[in-house]
Amino acid sequence: MAICVNNRNYKKYYSGFNSTILNMAPKKVAIVGSGNWGSAIARIVGSTAKENPDTFDQTINMWVFEEMVDGKKLSEVINTTHENIKYLPGKKLPENVVAVTDVAETCKDADILIFVIPHQFVTKVSNDLKGKVKKDAVAISLIKGLSTAKCDGIKLVSSEIKEILEIEVAVLMGANLAPEVANDNYCEATIGIRNQKHGEVLKTLFHTDNFRINVVQDIEAVELCGALKNIVACAAGFSDGLGYGDNTKAAIIRLGMMEIIRFVNQYYPGAHLSTFFESCGLADLVTTCYGGRNRRVCEAYVKSNKSLAEVEKELLNGQSAQGPLTAEEVVELLKKSDSGSSYPLFVAVDRICKGELQPKDLIDCLRNHPEHE
Amino acid sequence: MAICVNNRNYKKYYSGFNSTILNMAPKKVAIVGSGNWGSAIARIVGSTAKENPDTFDQTINMWVFEEMVDGKKLSEVINTTHENIKYLPGKKLPENVVAVTDVAETCKDADILIFVIPHQFVTKVSNDLKGKVKKDAVAISLIKGLSTAKCDGIKLVSSEIKEILEIEVAVLMGANLAPEVANDNYCEATIGIRNQKHGEVLKTLFHTDNFRINVVQDIEAVELCGALKNIVACAAGFSDGLGYGDNTKAAIIRLGMMEIIRFVNQYYPGAHLSTFFESCGLADLVTTCYGGRNRRVCEAYVKSNKSLAEVEKELLNGQSAQGPLTAEEVVELLKKSDSGSSYPLFVAVDRICKGELQPKDLIDCLRNHPEHE
Repeated sequence: MAICVNNRNYKKYYSGFNSTILNMAPKKVAIVGSGNWGSAIARIVGSTAKENPDTFDQTINMWVFEEMVDGKKLSEVINTTHENIKYLPGKKLPENVVAVTDVAETCKDADILIFVIPHQFVTKVSNDLKGKVKKDAVAISLIKGLSTAKCDGIKLVSSEIKEILEIEVAVLMGANLAPEVANDNYCEATIGIRNQKHGEVLKTLFHTDNFRINVVQDIEAVELCGALKNIVACAAGFSDGLGYGDNTKAAIIRLGMMEIIRFVNQYYPGAHLSTFFESCGLADLVTTCYGGRNRRVCEAYVKSNKSLAEVEKELLNGQSAQGPLTAEEVVELLKKSDSGSSYPLFVAVDRICKGELQPKDLIDCLRNHPEHE
Repeated sequence: MAICVNNRNYKKYYSGFNSTILNMAPKKVAIVGSGNWGSAIARIVGSTAKENPDTFDQTINMWVFEEMVDGKKLSEVINTTHENIKYLPGKKLPENVVAVTDVAETCKDADILIFVIPHQFVTKVSNDLKGKVKKDAVAISLIKGLSTAKCDGIKLVSSEIKEILEIEVAVLMGANLAPEVANDNYCEATIGIRNQKHGEVLKTLFHTDNFRINVVQDIEAVELCGALKNIVACAAGFSDGLGYGDNTKAAIIRLGMMEIIRFVNQYYPGAHLSTFFESCGLADLVTTCYGGRNRRVCEAYVKSNKSLAEVEKELLNGQSAQGPLTAEEVVELLKKSDSGSSYPLFVAVDRICKGELQPKDLIDCLRNHPEHE
């Protein structure tokens, strides 16, 4: 059965998990993924594991999808030079981070699984791991965006992992551009996890002088902030493209935040308002609306005479902007409960991205926002 | 007796005011001030008064501090050409807005007094009005920053007006750069007022298609957001000057917001967390940290070898950045209750502005922020 938000059954998946991560023995950590963000995170958890030998096993496996780079196997380059020359060139990985090319081998015996792969690979990779991970392991997803698994509604990436592996899944989100994290720039991140004691272990694993962690229990709120912000960033990009100025952009960011809060409250009731002031909320939204790729694509769309797909292709070098896709999925869900009128910004972004409205119509859509009633 | 936050007696000033603004007779509105922001607001309230003749008197007096512009009296230019050629050139004022050069004459018989003057003139102008305004009039302050009146602590501008005129005082704050408001760009603002029925009248006065008003009761929170954001903008400016990137800036904005919330909670307990998500909070803070003058001055200070005062003089054309002054007053107050350690960002900004710390020390000050405990 799919864990879709439309059937409101998600809560039962958050109880009943036991875990050995509270045992005295050092916990084994595995990283599922080795892209730009995965490699940046490997630098952090490799070093915190070394600093906490009583808490963490000293070897951290990192799954590398094997490919050839300059005639050499990427995994071998990482294990000899301790550098991911393809996805994080110029930065040394700690020597206790070991590249492994088989994902099941990577995660065998792991107590903590860090998922940091593109969201479209989550189902495949989770299925490859099914039945091959410890029953009491804890996963933590660093993946922003919604699950691409088929579902009559929307599905969180954490729910998809949980459903397949049947283990507890936490999330880590925040204003964390990977190159800046890799550069040891000071920043913050939010871990969402129900079990507070497990949260403390995960905080020890991720918290450094320059990567500051707060732990909250509202896991779905934390994760949805990371997905829904991209819709708001599209609206911010349209506003920038139209030259509307700082006041209007601030109003868009604020109204977007209010729709994120409303959405979480409607589909995953019970989150604390304070969670939206965490790095996963306020900080990530602001950064994305000023610097992110969704904003950039949508600004360029307004200024060009090209289709959104063409602009995306030109600017993102083959990658896709998640905002338009997320908007479509979210608006589909809203239509089912006839609640689109409570989310004028989300709906407007979806319609503009589909060409049903012009970007200049955005403000008309926001004028009678339910927030102003 | 001064209404300082350090003696915790502010609440009694918010009860016991009667008002005629709920009477059936059209309310007379006066604007105390005619600078850039005052003139932009005159365009709004002049038009809403015309649209609501049953609610508002059709003539709105606007106090103009008389000066000669191109050999002509500014008040006469405004009353003949309906343009404030000095402070808002190129924009027509509604013809029902009438320039008056005597402040007492401006406000005589007014039911609603809109205060929109530089904060350093509040005490003088309020004293000029003392005993000359209706006892049941309602004032609304659009003035950001703290009162400059002497006080053993800090004093809100609204408290200063209330103390002198002994009338109810509301506030209006938000992400509202005056030129953009004058240009009819879509934006939002927040009115803080205890009396909800009076709040409805004020909403009718300020709410337009492009200037969207929310009314909340947490008046001190609304006003303090407008003052304290400037301290945070200084920190954002130092971060920009040091080239720290988006993640760090987002963390600074977020930690600044948390200190604003903490400060309001410590000195004016009882505000709703949701108020900080209004335009006066989130939206104004973000705009100020990306586009404001405090940010600009502090960025330039880091990049130059000059003193803060020199940079300010060069960049602001004689105006002053309020962030450093506000930081000093706020930190003085914090010292009295020995609570500086709970506000590392506010304290660091104060010390950097005074030359006691280098801008590069900012992050060290934030590393062990109480938010991360």
